[in-house]
Amino acid sequence: MILQGEYTRSIMRTQDGKGARILDQRQLPWEVRWVELRDMEAAAIAIREMWTRGAPMVGATAAYGLAMALAEDPSDESLLAARDYLFHTRPTAVNLRWALDEVAKTVGPLPPAERAQAAFARADAICDEDVELCRAIGESGLQLLRDLHARHPDRPINILTHCNAGWLATVDYGTATAPIYLAHDEGIPVHVWVDETRPRNQGALLTAFELRNHGVPHTVIADNAGGLLMMQGKVDAVIVGTDRVTANGDVCNKIGTYLKALAAHDNDVPFYVALPYTTFDADTPSGDAIPIEERAGEELTQATGPAGDGTITTIRLTQSPAANPAFDVTPARLVTAYITEKGVLDRIGD
Amino acid sequence: MILQGEYTRSIMRTQDGKGARILDQRQLPWEVRWVELRDMEAAAIAIREMWTRGAPMVGATAAYGLAMALAEDPSDESLLAARDYLFHTRPTAVNLRWALDEVAKTVGPLPPAERAQAAFARADAICDEDVELCRAIGESGLQLLRDLHARHPDRPINILTHCNAGWLATVDYGTATAPIYLAHDEGIPVHVWVDETRPRNQGALLTAFELRNHGVPHTVIADNAGGLLMMQGKVDAVIVGTDRVTANGDVCNKIGTYLKALAAHDNDVPFYVALPYTTFDADTPSGDAIPIEERAGEELTQATGPAGDGTITTIRLTQSPAANPAFDVTPARLVTAYITEKGVLDRIGD
Repeated sequence: MILQGEYTRSIMRTQDGKGARILDQRQLPWEVRWVELRDMEAAAIAIREMWTRGAPMVGATAAYGLAMALAEDPSDESLLAARDYLFHTRPTAVNLRWALDEVAKTVGPLPPAERAQAAFARADAICDEDVELCRAIGESGLQLLRDLHARHPDRPINILTHCNAGWLATVDYGTATAPIYLAHDEGIPVHVWVDETRPRNQGALLTAFELRNHGVPHTVIADNAGGLLMMQGKVDAVIVGTDRVTANGDVCNKIGTYLKALAAHDNDVPFYVALPYTTFDADTPSGDAIPIEERAGEELTQATGPAGDGTITTIRLTQSPAANPAFDVTPARLVTAYITEKGVLDRIGD
Repeated sequence: MILQGEYTRSIMRTQDGKGARILDQRQLPWEVRWVELRDMEAAAIAIREMWTRGAPMVGATAAYGLAMALAEDPSDESLLAARDYLFHTRPTAVNLRWALDEVAKTVGPLPPAERAQAAFARADAICDEDVELCRAIGESGLQLLRDLHARHPDRPINILTHCNAGWLATVDYGTATAPIYLAHDEGIPVHVWVDETRPRNQGALLTAFELRNHGVPHTVIADNAGGLLMMQGKVDAVIVGTDRVTANGDVCNKIGTYLKALAAHDNDVPFYVALPYTTFDADTPSGDAIPIEERAGEELTQATGPAGDGTITTIRLTQSPAANPAFDVTPARLVTAYITEKGVLDRIGD
């Protein structure tokens, strides 16, 4: 990832090696603010109050948080208490538990004096592994974009994406964005249609911010516009991320994904879902079984951004009540292929 | 229509009969402001600067404007000049030309002294005819809602609508909303899912305002949410308006309509288009032939509404460039039926 002209990562150790440095995503894109997390409590706050988000970032932040707790007190009691405390910063975050378990497994057998250093090393490795994973997803998807480019060598390849499955949610590359960054970096002309992604506007705010920083040409569109663009032949492929893919291949992702999949299907535009293979949930038979999170209506009835004088201001958008389901389910029949670190799979789970 | 507890119309003569009274829609829903148009120039400004909008409202306002011009100077020269002046307040407004021609045809043969009164009378009649037209569209659609209610007598009927095809765009009732108001008025429990309708938010701002004033239960949703709600069985029918229906039945309407039609089709939810039969354009063979208006990106990258202290404030929503196509085309194959003043038609144009 390139941020403000520099190659960097979404999370890394502080210069003295004793803490972790993350972007405070609450201010993005209006202010790029790095924060240094210097103890477990800071890491817990960053997760709980969503300074950082995305399963890999939450896991990495928690892993460093556990290392910082062990730097203060490396005892068995401290390890158990810190692990438990960090686990409860966010509900139902599978990756959070996994990362904490990884660190605990690594340091548990060690004498207390060696635990902090080993925990930091394991946290570093978790980050490196995530970068490798996303890069591998990107390599899988890159071949698809190379093929599209070969078919249309005289113009940019147009990719539509929804929400933010980019490097802000991972340590680097992102998932849905990884093929785009790799294609751009190797000189394939790529243009991205960025769905605004109401109601939280993660596309217009976060994905657009990433692409702008990385220098990838892009245009923000209303969530309503993708169908027309596909009908007009202005979209070569759709690539989205996912929170969960069920045993039959149904895709749970940000609300509105299903509508884009329908339009892609209706216009013979390939619809790809990028994911680490661990996001495949063989225990849930199909999308019907997934409860849909209903979030606060205020996310829809209010909007926040800089006013003319630059002051970050919240305005009302309607006087009426709002419903705000956060996710929808795209049936497997609408998915062209799954882009994973193991390759591009027509079907998943076999 | 009911506004602030009173039965009224979107346009009517002033109490002294010499002008016309309209809602200044630029402030809605945050401020309900009636303005009295007392001369032709005021009517021209109201049309040009979009204090009022919607083909029927633009036509009615122009008709009253012509009557006011004749009240000042009823000569042939004045009639021709005023008609020409008012015609050029908005581009390509078919209904605007029609209304002006109607008034001119009526008063042309009369002695100048009788023209103003006859023009006002014709403008009144144009309004009454529009109310009758919308009411007839409503009666056609009402039968569909009665049928839905009979099938689900124990719960409200859930209608999804997109954009604003309500009484703010007509003299009363609206088109897509007319069946809803008639059903509500006769005691059928109706609940409306109101698409926010990005980027101009006409759903969250205008349709929600209408429904609230008329006392119809409704919930604003992100444009992304309709597909999930249909999949969950929470939508019994979609009703939208249209700007133009082509000879083959394709529907040109606010951007995003096509996505909802796809979702309705995928979930066996009936998708209805409400329109006056004059909106049927037999001269355009199909939707491919319709040029899509591209509007300013600022409609997407900025939002306006009251801040915490009530001050109407404009904020930025993204730092990136935006594309803003205003309409899309819903293929006829996705339309269940057309609701017109002539009845509910499975096909149009035969």
